[in-house]
Amino acid sequence: MTRVLVTGGSGFLGRPTVAALLAQGHEVHVAGRGPSPGKDVAHHPFDLLGGDGAGLLAALRPDVILHLAWFVEHGRFWEAPENLDWVAATLRLARASDAAGVARFVGIGTCMEYDWSVEPGRPRREADALTATQLYGEAKIATYRLLARFFAADGPGFAWARVFHPYGPGEPQAKLVTSLLRTAREGGDLEIRSGPLVRDFIAAEDVGTALAALATSRVTGAVNIASGAPSSVRRLVETVQALPGCRGRFLFRDAPAGSEPPAMTADVTRLREEVGVPPPPPLARRLQEMAEALA
Amino acid sequence: MTRVLVTGGSGFLGRPTVAALLAQGHEVHVAGRGPSPGKDVAHHPFDLLGGDGAGLLAALRPDVILHLAWFVEHGRFWEAPENLDWVAATLRLARASDAAGVARFVGIGTCMEYDWSVEPGRPRREADALTATQLYGEAKIATYRLLARFFAADGPGFAWARVFHPYGPGEPQAKLVTSLLRTAREGGDLEIRSGPLVRDFIAAEDVGTALAALATSRVTGAVNIASGAPSSVRRLVETVQALPGCRGRFLFRDAPAGSEPPAMTADVTRLREEVGVPPPPPLARRLQEMAEALA
Repeated sequence: MTRVLVTGGSGFLGRPTVAALLAQGHEVHVAGRGPSPGKDVAHHPFDLLGGDGAGLLAALRPDVILHLAWFVEHGRFWEAPENLDWVAATLRLARASDAAGVARFVGIGTCMEYDWSVEPGRPRREADALTATQLYGEAKIATYRLLARFFAADGPGFAWARVFHPYGPGEPQAKLVTSLLRTAREGGDLEIRSGPLVRDFIAAEDVGTALAALATSRVTGAVNIASGAPSSVRRLVETVQALPGCRGRFLFRDAPAGSEPPAMTADVTRLREEVGVPPPPPLARRLQEMAEALA
Repeated sequence: MTRVLVTGGSGFLGRPTVAALLAQGHEVHVAGRGPSPGKDVAHHPFDLLGGDGAGLLAALRPDVILHLAWFVEHGRFWEAPENLDWVAATLRLARASDAAGVARFVGIGTCMEYDWSVEPGRPRREADALTATQLYGEAKIATYRLLARFFAADGPGFAWARVFHPYGPGEPQAKLVTSLLRTAREGGDLEIRSGPLVRDFIAAEDVGTALAALATSRVTGAVNIASGAPSSVRRLVETVQALPGCRGRFLFRDAPAGSEPPAMTADVTRLREEVGVPPPPPLARRLQEMAEALA
């Protein structure tokens, strides 16, 4: 049993991660401003933007810090100045974690860290080139690089989860999968302009399983968190359309010429072989489950 | 007249910068934990690691923040965990600066931001590739990239001074030029193992002139701060040896095979043509002045 302190534990990815840690038999503590994520979890109200948590860490002595908290307001987070606050808060927490003798620190990054301007069709390995096109990606890259070097110099284990395209209950209403499932349930037409784009969609539940496994493993460095089974948006939409009782109509339109990479996919070798996380259930099953949960 | 708030104003590069700002007729305020750098300067005792300075900025309403403060303990700063604290403090100050409506923010970087593993003999332009070999460089690169994007999105002018190899009064005793001048004055033998290395040595006074000009200009982005007249270490040593009254002996030895780039030199086109800073006096004159100041 590992004692894990989770930040952002009441968030979209935090909740399934906490559930997975509990299911794997770990002792879970959650620190943050959010509500308690459940009765089996010790909840420590704490504002990460207001302090480094040194007191909490000294009292709690966790084996691992799994730091998921960040500014993630839909539509705003890409260029929000709050990204700077979360870089600063993360560096402070890492310093406090090191000072408190915490043996392992795991942070959360994004597929947006990779340089998709070259060979977009090639699945990304963790050692591939990084470059950012928005402040959010820049902030995650900066945090990753600083922490990787800081913890490498200093001993404790450090891992960095690069999450691809998660979807699931509790995501903002405007996100693709939730929009599709709402239209499927309520009927009406939905125009889809991103049909040809290929992404690695992964259910939040499967992200949670992977993050819990990574946090409690001894694997260090960056690790892609993805399904390993990418899909075009068109195929995702068609999968929703094929769900029992779908009442919506999805109309594929040409995309405006944009800067979106045609494909963003992950090499999941590290996740499978080093962390030991098996492939998740197929997209169709996860979408069906989410549709049922929303109904 | 520009109202400039300087952090690190009592440091090795801060003092000549404050002097240059005063000489150029500006209103200079210094915030920091250090002593007041002089009677013509308003001194605001402040711990940058303890707060974002919002109150000070609101009261002072500077036109420019020239943020020079960082952790620079000789020999330790390359890998010191304090680099993380200064990234965090700098991001906080930038946020507070933006919130207070300060029109311009100028930070200080280093030639160690450049990727010297490729074409080391080529003078670096500001747009060249960056990569770090230690935590200090990583921290400066991260800060530069985050602030460049943050301020670009947000309006105010942002500039970043990449300082090459400064020397001058008040530098740590173990630094090359101070060691050479001490041996010249006191006599004795000094072994030199870095003779073939080519660097852009620049007197702290000339860095101060350049930083003052950059801070009060409208130039944005990264700007190399260098003499534009690089020298081998051997020529630097021979110049010291040729100073009147030199009593020391300098013994050139082979360097241990190391990872030091053979040359680190700057393209100073931006500094000369956009910021309008003329070439500094020659190395021999600056070394002579420093020798006289130390005597």
